[in-house]
Amino acid sequence: MAERIRIGIYGYGNIGRSVEKAVLRNADMSLTAIFTRRDPGKVGTVSGMKATSVDNVLEFKDRIDVMILCGGSATDLPVQGPELAEHFSIVDSYDTHAKIPEYMEKVGRQAELGKKAAVVSAGWDPGLFSMMRSMFISVLPDGENNTFWGPGVSQGHSDAIRRVEGVADGIQYTVPAESIFNEVKNGSQAEYTMRQKLRRICYVVPDVDADKEGITAAIKGMPNYFADYDTEVNFITAEEMKRKHSGMPHAGNMFRNGSTDEDERHHLEFVLRMDSNAGFTASVMAAYARAAFKLSKDGNYGAKTVLDIPISYLSPKSRETQIAELL
Amino acid sequence: MAERIRIGIYGYGNIGRSVEKAVLRNADMSLTAIFTRRDPGKVGTVSGMKATSVDNVLEFKDRIDVMILCGGSATDLPVQGPELAEHFSIVDSYDTHAKIPEYMEKVGRQAELGKKAAVVSAGWDPGLFSMMRSMFISVLPDGENNTFWGPGVSQGHSDAIRRVEGVADGIQYTVPAESIFNEVKNGSQAEYTMRQKLRRICYVVPDVDADKEGITAAIKGMPNYFADYDTEVNFITAEEMKRKHSGMPHAGNMFRNGSTDEDERHHLEFVLRMDSNAGFTASVMAAYARAAFKLSKDGNYGAKTVLDIPISYLSPKSRETQIAELL
Repeated sequence: MAERIRIGIYGYGNIGRSVEKAVLRNADMSLTAIFTRRDPGKVGTVSGMKATSVDNVLEFKDRIDVMILCGGSATDLPVQGPELAEHFSIVDSYDTHAKIPEYMEKVGRQAELGKKAAVVSAGWDPGLFSMMRSMFISVLPDGENNTFWGPGVSQGHSDAIRRVEGVADGIQYTVPAESIFNEVKNGSQAEYTMRQKLRRICYVVPDVDADKEGITAAIKGMPNYFADYDTEVNFITAEEMKRKHSGMPHAGNMFRNGSTDEDERHHLEFVLRMDSNAGFTASVMAAYARAAFKLSKDGNYGAKTVLDIPISYLSPKSRETQIAELL
Repeated sequence: MAERIRIGIYGYGNIGRSVEKAVLRNADMSLTAIFTRRDPGKVGTVSGMKATSVDNVLEFKDRIDVMILCGGSATDLPVQGPELAEHFSIVDSYDTHAKIPEYMEKVGRQAELGKKAAVVSAGWDPGLFSMMRSMFISVLPDGENNTFWGPGVSQGHSDAIRRVEGVADGIQYTVPAESIFNEVKNGSQAEYTMRQKLRRICYVVPDVDADKEGITAAIKGMPNYFADYDTEVNFITAEEMKRKHSGMPHAGNMFRNGSTDEDERHHLEFVLRMDSNAGFTASVMAAYARAAFKLSKDGNYGAKTVLDIPISYLSPKSRETQIAELL
């Protein structure tokens, strides 16, 4: 292999560990450094690589081709994305849908300044599902898209529960409403509200002497996260939480039903089932790290999304080989 | 709308009629001309537009932005693609998988000469399925792809039956083998032969006094098309053919099962069901005509495939609107 893509991992939590595993599984990539805000000496990594303090990140400016950002969308990425995009080509999975244009603008400006490629929001949703959403509409303009998330754990909604006063631990499962799911799978083009399409099931470990009714009301009334949905709150013990809810499975189904003429109906569907949300998201980010590398080689700088990047950029194979083998 | 994309349709059979309907359904496109090899006065079009003789096509050089080629892959496109690509940006659905690189080279050379964009093999397979095949492998490198075609009519295989001596009419349905289909849908990563994965069911109207045993043997032994599959040949009357087999439904399922760690398994799936193969293929071609238009505006000339073209190029919406609304 001519040259391996030198990868850095910025932030070493759940996603960071999964990105490390993903990089190790891609033979055209090599892991150069893992950056942490914690004491590097106390961080044990999957590969055994010694972690590096984030304070030293700029020393790696010429030794890393693509930095994969593994921080959270709420507070980490809005700061780290623009800061790092000037110095490194980056990939992140920024997932606050409503704020993506604003985030892209900030990241894009710095990336252009530093002549780097920045691939933002490259997970599964936003990410692969965004790609499908756009493609489905374009190839079948007369129709209706319907996305069902779950059954699976939503990290954002679990975090929101854990911020409620009196909550020691919490997890949220997004579950499609089965009857409507089957209607859409079988061709329905009706429009459904989110409330009709899915339910949110919460498991909460309360603090000792916590006000359970207050917790339930606070969760069910939380705007954006729970207020618009059928939400169920269940209280469990810490022991049960650990025993039954340690995995991070997730899933999603996107459908489009539409027509090209009277009596010419068509159905498109994209399905994803994951044992581990972090594991799959990290694997997608690794593929987009390859795309960021190619974009930066092309001199195609600035902020890019899954909608901007040709599929062939995700592959370690040459364009010609892909055309011969996969088309 | 600033400017509508001026479309020409080259070849007016089954696909040509469907492309005409698709263009009429895309508000950012206008239909400029329909070219036919037949006597234009005898061709009735869907929209009522008067057809034009293919002999006059070059008169339209400056009046058409994208020409959609609707001829067959066996004999039409290998001639028409390279001929027209010099004078027009084109889209086709060339589907002889094994010969795509050779075809692309010829078309690409002419397109570059004429400074035009040529989008080749833009249907559903090759086309959308090719895109999924490549994307699935890249985002989940440790895994196994499995494609099941059908249940549905294969035009290429139906044509092959009709070329057999003694056959008056014929149609072929590709049908997935249900047990293996379900194994893969439920996560199997085993490798299966095409013979295991699908069956080919043929309905044949024989000529009067035809040698039915000879026909059956000729079909079952036909290399590439039938010899490697479980093939079933049924003889029916012309009346039954017309009554039961006039539709052109088709379907396909592509699966990838893979893992990102021990005990971290994931499943990706792309499903397409079509009432009309031609209707859906034409709708995909119309979206890629938009991409060809944008590529040519970018000065990005030459032969392109679905693997080379960003998803955002398929949409009538601006990149910024797509990012805000769909990401």
